[in-house]
Amino acid sequence: MPRPALIADPELDLSLERVVDVPRSLVWAAWTQPEHLVKWFCPLPWTTTDCQIDLQPGGMFRTTMQGPQGPAFTNTGCFLQVVDRELLAWTGALAPGFRPLASEAATALPFTMTAFIALADAPGGTRYTALVRHGDASARQAHEQMGFHVGWGKALDQLVEHARAGDFGAPA
Amino acid sequence: MPRPALIADPELDLSLERVVDVPRSLVWAAWTQPEHLVKWFCPLPWTTTDCQIDLQPGGMFRTTMQGPQGPAFTNTGCFLQVVDRELLAWTGALAPGFRPLASEAATALPFTMTAFIALADAPGGTRYTALVRHGDASARQAHEQMGFHVGWGKALDQLVEHARAGDFGAPA
Repeated sequence: MPRPALIADPELDLSLERVVDVPRSLVWAAWTQPEHLVKWFCPLPWTTTDCQIDLQPGGMFRTTMQGPQGPAFTNTGCFLQVVDRELLAWTGALAPGFRPLASEAATALPFTMTAFIALADAPGGTRYTALVRHGDASARQAHEQMGFHVGWGKALDQLVEHARAGDFGAPA
Repeated sequence: MPRPALIADPELDLSLERVVDVPRSLVWAAWTQPEHLVKWFCPLPWTTTDCQIDLQPGGMFRTTMQGPQGPAFTNTGCFLQVVDRELLAWTGALAPGFRPLASEAATALPFTMTAFIALADAPGGTRYTALVRHGDASARQAHEQMGFHVGWGKALDQLVEHARAGDFGAPA
C-alpha cells in the first residue's frame, strides 16, 4: 500500500521518536489488541477502562479514559491505514466507516487529530515514531498544552513495562 | 485490502446505482485522471475548471467547480481507499495527508461527506454504485436538497457520453 510521507510540520504537528527495547511484534500487539492496550494507553493515574478495535481501514478505534476523579471520556475514531507491524494510522475526524462526524460531536471536541505510529527494526529493539497531525496551529498548541510530550512519553514507558512483564505470551 | 461494507444508512446516506454501458477500465480512468474528470464531473451548465489527483490513500483530491455566474468553488479532500478499477473512496473531512481540517475551513463548509465509488462487471457493462456518507441527518438532507440525485445522475450521464465519444484512447 502506498503511504504518504510521515514528515512533521512544526507549525501543525507533534511527534515523538524513541528506540525501545521491545520487539516490533510486541509493540504492534500492544497497540492493536484491546486486552493489551488497556494496560498502558493512558498515563497513570488515568486508566483505560474500555477499548474496541476493528483493525482495518475504516474500522472502529474506540477508547474510554478514566481519571482518578470526574467523568470518563470516550474517543471514537476510525483506522485509516493498517500495515502489519509497520504502520498504524487513525483519526478522530472520522467515525467508523469513514463517516464524517456529526456536527454536534465535531463541535464538542476541543480539537481533532490524526495519528500515525510507525515501527521499524533498530539496533537494540524498535524505532518507535509517533506523528500527530492537527488542522491548525491552535489545535496543535491545545494538544501540546494538554501535555502531549509527557503523556505520550509516559504511555510509551508503560507499554515497555507491560511488554517486559511478559504478559504477551510468545511473540506473534 | 479489507473494506468496510458499503451499506447505505437511509437516515444518513445518499446513493446511486446504475449499470452503465462502459467498460470498468474507462469508468475508472474517468474518475482518476484529471484530464478526463474535468470533462464530465460537474453537471452542465457548471464546469470543472481544475482537478488535482494524487491517487493513493492520503493523497489529494481537489476539484474546482464554476457556475455560469458567480464565484468558483474549490473542494480539497483526501483519498481514503484506492483499489484499481474496483473502489475509490475519499472524504472532504480530511485534508491531504489525512490531516484534520483547519477549524476555519471546517466551519465554512455547509457539510462534509465521504464518498465511495464501487465498480463491478455486469451484463451490459459496469455496475456503478455511488455511496455518500454524511455525519448527521441534516447534512444528508442539505445534500439531497442541493440536488444530489439529479446532479450525480447527470454527471454520470456525462461520464458515459465522454467514454462513448472515444476520447480515452485504447482501454487500459
